[in-house]
Amino acid sequence: MAYFKNVNKIQYEGASSKNPLAYKYYNSEEIINGKTAEEWLRFSVAYWHTFTADGTDQFGAGTAIRPWNHLTGMDVAKARVEAAFEFFEKLDVPFFCFHDVDIAPEGSTLKETNQNLDVIVAMMKEYMKTSKTKILWNTANMFTNPRYTHGAATSCNADVFAYSAAKVKKGLEVARELGAQNYVFWGGREGYETLLNTDMKLELDNLGRFFHMAVDYAKEIGFDGQFLIEPKPKEPTKHQYDFDVATGLAFLQKYDLQDDFKFNIEANHATLAGHTFEHELRTARINGMLGSVDANQGDVLLGWDTDEFPTDLYSTTLAMFEILKNGGLGKGGLNFDAKVRRGSFEPEDLFEGHIAGMDSFAIGLKVANKLIEDNVLDSFIDERYSSYTQGIGKAIVEGKTNFRELEAYALQLTEVKNKSGKTERLRALINQYLLETLSTVRV
Amino acid sequence: MAYFKNVNKIQYEGASSKNPLAYKYYNSEEIINGKTAEEWLRFSVAYWHTFTADGTDQFGAGTAIRPWNHLTGMDVAKARVEAAFEFFEKLDVPFFCFHDVDIAPEGSTLKETNQNLDVIVAMMKEYMKTSKTKILWNTANMFTNPRYTHGAATSCNADVFAYSAAKVKKGLEVARELGAQNYVFWGGREGYETLLNTDMKLELDNLGRFFHMAVDYAKEIGFDGQFLIEPKPKEPTKHQYDFDVATGLAFLQKYDLQDDFKFNIEANHATLAGHTFEHELRTARINGMLGSVDANQGDVLLGWDTDEFPTDLYSTTLAMFEILKNGGLGKGGLNFDAKVRRGSFEPEDLFEGHIAGMDSFAIGLKVANKLIEDNVLDSFIDERYSSYTQGIGKAIVEGKTNFRELEAYALQLTEVKNKSGKTERLRALINQYLLETLSTVRV
Amino acid sequence: MAYFKNVNKIQYEGASSKNPLAYKYYNSEEIINGKTAEEWLRFSVAYWHTFTADGTDQFGAGTAIRPWNHLTGMDVAKARVEAAFEFFEKLDVPFFCFHDVDIAPEGSTLKETNQNLDVIVAMMKEYMKTSKTKILWNTANMFTNPRYTHGAATSCNADVFAYSAAKVKKGLEVARELGAQNYVFWGGREGYETLLNTDMKLELDNLGRFFHMAVDYAKEIGFDGQFLIEPKPKEPTKHQYDFDVATGLAFLQKYDLQDDFKFNIEANHATLAGHTFEHELRTARINGMLGSVDANQGDVLLGWDTDEFPTDLYSTTLAMFEILKNGGLGKGGLNFDAKVRRGSFEPEDLFEGHIAGMDSFAIGLKVANKLIEDNVLDSFIDERYSSYTQGIGKAIVEGKTNFRELEAYALQLTEVKNKSGKTERLRALINQYLLETLSTVRV
Amino acid sequence: MAYFKNVNKIQYEGASSKNPLAYKYYNSEEIINGKTAEEWLRFSVAYWHTFTADGTDQFGAGTAIRPWNHLTGMDVAKARVEAAFEFFEKLDVPFFCFHDVDIAPEGSTLKETNQNLDVIVAMMKEYMKTSKTKILWNTANMFTNPRYTHGAATSCNADVFAYSAAKVKKGLEVARELGAQNYVFWGGREGYETLLNTDMKLELDNLGRFFHMAVDYAKEIGFDGQFLIEPKPKEPTKHQYDFDVATGLAFLQKYDLQDDFKFNIEANHATLAGHTFEHELRTARINGMLGSVDANQGDVLLGWDTDEFPTDLYSTTLAMFEILKNGGLGKGGLNFDAKVRRGSFEPEDLFEGHIAGMDSFAIGLKVANKLIEDNVLDSFIDERYSSYTQGIGKAIVEGKTNFRELEAYALQLTEVKNKSGKTERLRALINQYLLETLSTVRV
Repeated sequence: MAYFKNVNKIQYEGASSKNPLAYKYYNSEEIINGKTAEEWLRFSVAYWHTFTADGTDQFGAGTAIRPWNHLTGMDVAKARVEAAFEFFEKLDVPFFCFHDVDIAPEGSTLKETNQNLDVIVAMMKEYMKTSKTKILWNTANMFTNPRYTHGAATSCNADVFAYSAAKVKKGLEVARELGAQNYVFWGGREGYETLLNTDMKLELDNLGRFFHMAVDYAKEIGFDGQFLIEPKPKEPTKHQYDFDVATGLAFLQKYDLQDDFKFNIEANHATLAGHTFEHELRTARINGMLGSVDANQGDVLLGWDTDEFPTDLYSTTLAMFEILKNGGLGKGGLNFDAKVRRGSFEPEDLFEGHIAGMDSFAIGLKVANKLIEDNVLDSFIDERYSSYTQGIGKAIVEGKTNFRELEAYALQLTEVKNKSGKTERLRALINQYLLETLSTVRV
Repeated sequence: MAYFKNVNKIQYEGASSKNPLAYKYYNSEEIINGKTAEEWLRFSVAYWHTFTADGTDQFGAGTAIRPWNHLTGMDVAKARVEAAFEFFEKLDVPFFCFHDVDIAPEGSTLKETNQNLDVIVAMMKEYMKTSKTKILWNTANMFTNPRYTHGAATSCNADVFAYSAAKVKKGLEVARELGAQNYVFWGGREGYETLLNTDMKLELDNLGRFFHMAVDYAKEIGFDGQFLIEPKPKEPTKHQYDFDVATGLAFLQKYDLQDDFKFNIEANHATLAGHTFEHELRTARINGMLGSVDANQGDVLLGWDTDEFPTDLYSTTLAMFEILKNGGLGKGGLNFDAKVRRGSFEPEDLFEGHIAGMDSFAIGLKVANKLIEDNVLDSFIDERYSSYTQGIGKAIVEGKTNFRELEAYALQLTEVKNKSGKTERLRALINQYLLETLSTVRV
Repeated sequence: MAYFKNVNKIQYEGASSKNPLAYKYYNSEEIINGKTAEEWLRFSVAYWHTFTADGTDQFGAGTAIRPWNHLTGMDVAKARVEAAFEFFEKLDVPFFCFHDVDIAPEGSTLKETNQNLDVIVAMMKEYMKTSKTKILWNTANMFTNPRYTHGAATSCNADVFAYSAAKVKKGLEVARELGAQNYVFWGGREGYETLLNTDMKLELDNLGRFFHMAVDYAKEIGFDGQFLIEPKPKEPTKHQYDFDVATGLAFLQKYDLQDDFKFNIEANHATLAGHTFEHELRTARINGMLGSVDANQGDVLLGWDTDEFPTDLYSTTLAMFEILKNGGLGKGGLNFDAKVRRGSFEPEDLFEGHIAGMDSFAIGLKVANKLIEDNVLDSFIDERYSSYTQGIGKAIVEGKTNFRELEAYALQLTEVKNKSGKTERLRALINQYLLETLSTVRV
Repeated sequence: MAYFKNVNKIQYEGASSKNPLAYKYYNSEEIINGKTAEEWLRFSVAYWHTFTADGTDQFGAGTAIRPWNHLTGMDVAKARVEAAFEFFEKLDVPFFCFHDVDIAPEGSTLKETNQNLDVIVAMMKEYMKTSKTKILWNTANMFTNPRYTHGAATSCNADVFAYSAAKVKKGLEVARELGAQNYVFWGGREGYETLLNTDMKLELDNLGRFFHMAVDYAKEIGFDGQFLIEPKPKEPTKHQYDFDVATGLAFLQKYDLQDDFKFNIEANHATLAGHTFEHELRTARINGMLGSVDANQGDVLLGWDTDEFPTDLYSTTLAMFEILKNGGLGKGGLNFDAKVRRGSFEPEDLFEGHIAGMDSFAIGLKVANKLIEDNVLDSFIDERYSSYTQGIGKAIVEGKTNFRELEAYALQLTEVKNKSGKTERLRALINQYLLETLSTVRV
């Protein structure tokens, strides 16, 4: 059956199209710098927001009108799989992502939960034989069930640690079975409510132990996907241990896990931590740790995770700039960890949200690529730091000097001359590239 | 003499220009919806940021390289006037704004201060005979001098109230003398450091008294400019009484001043108050209180007033949308209350900053105008609220019903049906208009 | 039956008690400045947080262990009433508050919903015959049900306006029937998601119309409780029209409703708006609009409404200072709009949370009363503003001067002398009063 | 001469004193857990805020009335030394801290600057022969002078790197000469204004190189003080590389500097980064990196560094809890990186501010010590995590299990039972300890 009867396959119709159910900028086959747009962007649909969530917020019940709303239990789980692959095909996306509980309901025992999962995984595997859409990553939801109230791998309760281990073990088996490219850890409850009752050191040590066990088990079963940590500073907890990329780096180094993990960076989590999206991407990139992206946007005037579909073209451009500089995302992709607004409750809104996001990132890709092709920012930066390519600067970079020599050098300087950083010019250039890149006639 | 020898008159060169000292989008003479771009935009240079400030921040000394840096006292004041009119002419802007202390140094007595002011005002008047550039507004700086430590019109010290009255009296005389279109109150110290030592009621009552005296004096001397209050929530004080437009409205109504004042709305002050720029503009507009605009932008991840040159095209577009809906700004204008970054310390950066801002607002004007011409948002809104044009909705709006009738109506409703708010579609449309409006060939 | 078998009536045991289920500071009968602690504090239990909520958060399912969890429909509604009155009696609180849907489930039609409500209201009325606990205020929940997605009285859908009118009409009838002291409006969905699809003026005009109809209906049926607006800046909406007290004041003045409404001020909503709790209380107080208080606290490092039980003694002290200065809360009270943390899921935690809050406000009452008795802040403030009691200051306050006279006065001032605001001393004094007030032996 | 004639030596007068110029809670000689209060607290005066700063803020000129205001150049520098030691003696504090430019003016050349410094250092050394007050730490100001516009060790200009090296070299020599206990790096400009013009990797690599050279030079000259990094997330820059403790940890590990550095943690910087003060202290403590403390407080409703004197007793209590758990601060101390408010401009306010801070930390010390003595939080935590001391939990902690075993364990669990986290009870206990600890008679 067709779940989205009112929607045909989404076509690229170009920038002048007035059809809300068409791509205006995302042409999956367009070649950009040697790869297709689809290959660069590696779009992924988030199963939870698109097929499982219902528009509930902290002050309101679900609003979403979904063709499977009349079903429950395993029936709704199966219907969602059918709807999902229809959706993937109509959008023509190469990937999707899910938590275990998004795809199959929890049973009354762990065994039953795993059996439910097996049924859906088998169903998905069947679909994937004929679908182009693969799994970018999967993960275990270790935050919704009350058992995780005080954390999962960082719970004060060893039974919960054990239970969490069982969940991730199963998750890794599912990942291998379905050929997931990555496995993600988002530690939604791995943090604290108050330091007054928290043994932070034990909790972090346990988290390190947990990750090592996961690495060991993946090797044991031959799962060769990339492990990813998804930083978030807070919400639902007051403090989440994977606050941001830098905090994750400190943790991974301390527990000797830096070779086994990269980061899955979410735009909205970046801003909640007080950073721009591009800051987090840059930090990961220059440390060789940029793994994948949760493509969404927040509202910086709101203090919670709004998970909006990304439409800010500055953000998509600067994100794609980092991704292009990284040589792409490797096994990672752009996963729309984004939900239609609670007031956008019609099934078509799911398509419109994804189209908005995909077009926005396609624009970002083209603008960023043009910025790089024209060497706009790089030439400015090369000139700006040119003093490090010669003389005393070269000695500094090569580690061939010391404080005594540098003082001697400084003492003979009559004046230190800086050059303008030109922030205003660079921002105007970004606007010009944004407006002109896609306008082939005018530039 | 020429202060900006390296810069010629800024010309409109079109979107393909690579000249940093040219307008790419602002063509002052372009006709948009019946008026020139210059008439719609009414750009104004802020004297303080451009001619008086030196790049000092809380942690660093001035960096600005300015051709008048070697001068002091009245000499620098006069040099700045010369430089300012050269700058205005080269940018070709119709307006500028100033605080009294921006243009002339304070003397050792109030009398001497006023004399200094008279000298510069006379000099400006002379320049204005041949310059197209007029005064958008002036104001009295009642926050820098230590006497205003505890406030000006809301000081706990009656002498400070009196001194402030003298300053505004002079300011109004200067405004009349120079033909300023508006007179602005930004109450930088009108607020409190701590409630523990503050008689908030007396302070607000005094502020109301002060404004009434200002209105009376303006009438007395025949100054017919518009009075404007510029809201800001905090900084330098912990709480500033003119927190935002709504707070200003409450105050003006309470003290019966609403007919004598409008608002001067600053983008960065809006975001510091937790609002978008367009929210503040909308709030003022629908209350008939949109007077003028301080055109800048903040960094929403930073908690202080950064006063950046506006380059965010979403913000300029949505701002111009409100301004167009308002039928323009009347006596008001777009004043660049914006400073080049401390690291952009070269004289040319002053031009580049203004060009960036002017181009950005010119783009915003064109995109917003096209949105209105095409009836994009209005038609959506008309349809969305159409239930208020008939039946029970019409009765509500016309005040012809009551709770009893409405209950009777509600009791017979079998279902309440809403329609999707379509936030995602509308955001995608804004992107499409942003990219396509200026691209005459492609749409 | 007893729902809280493990908990006996909470007794005042004094500051040295180690019993978590005892009051250490709240002695309801203690006389403070002529009234009992109970009379000053007028504590109220929030039905929703204590009896209806289950610990669900945005990322997790309910955790609360409640003796009525096995029941559903009207059965659970009735059990909650029984439990509530047991709880009220064991805590010995004079008031409680509720939304309609907290106490009775919505039916499949409005008629059925009202019938459900009638059953519970009758049951409550019966309980109230023998209970000391009365209703501080009730309200209609017009935010949870999907029909309110786009607002209630500010919905774009006139049917929703009508439905909301029916809900408030019933709410006022319930208020009269049960003798509620106040009726509250918290407009959780009265705001917008995006200005792109919003007719802000129509929505606000409709809100004004709605309130007038409510006032009219209350008069018609003889409900003489106080109407209260509860400001909140955002969440769930991006912008809520009742942003803060000042915004509410602007609205009430514009729509000529200021004589019919006061404010119900919540601590956590204050901080979300960028204000201190005491700022909002002060603003309401000096405008004669302080009606009631939602006593809780937020976490200022988090950007959402955490609704924690109030334990910050600075906050309770400064709040009680404003309340004492207001001569008490009149018909209002201190309603614990506070929820135990999701990890505090045991029934006893409900008692411990309330005890923590009640003790904290009792301490605040005593400390604030002592500060007022000793004239600590007032004498400082009187001295600080003394210049307004004579000479030019007196003329200013009495409206007997103008800018000309004030300038003449200012011109003859040789120096403006201010006095230190002494913030540091005042804060140290607050600490000293906090530590010493309850320590009768030591001071 | 006496600079503070109106102030005598500050005495401990006890909690009932009404003398604003007396300690009410800080008794330097009081023995607490085996050490004197002075030994635990190791108070330090910040030279810059107390002797150099003048109350300037971003919108206002200096207000501070200081007995040395009539002097300039080296004269004021010398007068400040005299005043400082008088101040230290009257407060009876064991330490002070300074930046180079706080104590001596910059000359027209680096050589002259160093000569100025030598004069003052010699003068201080002389004073220190008879004063009990020693140097907690010194540092080089590498943010005020325009040469640091684009950073110091992370500048894009190699000359600035060299100049900075010369400054720190001199700083280390001064530290050795005066016996400073620590040397601090606060990288006020080590960050970026915009990523558009920034080579983040090169900048961070250079910062690593710089620190290694500092370590090398300290060894070379035999300076054995502790190196400290002071994290701050932003201000003046948009992003500061030492964002918070975790970010610093990532950096130090990456550049193999973790054995040579600890952290100097500032309360206000913690909150600007979105953390509580105690979070940052805890993070440093459990990593063995808690070096020293900048004792102040911010206003969490303001987005900039307010550097207020610490008077929040919750904050001082929880800070002292971490410090006591750390076994004290070792070579570190509690440095009042705090300034009197701009409105507290009288010389006496400097004393009142310090007294407020010292009393507040003395209270925090006593309350925290009592909490530890009574084993209040620890016993709760031990019980809470007890599952890790036996069975599967013990196996987890000892690294003797794996996902297979844990899954087997989890599969046989019939139910996962958690216990309440008791946040409400713990907060009430903190209040009880706060009020009762100092009240020896009542508990």
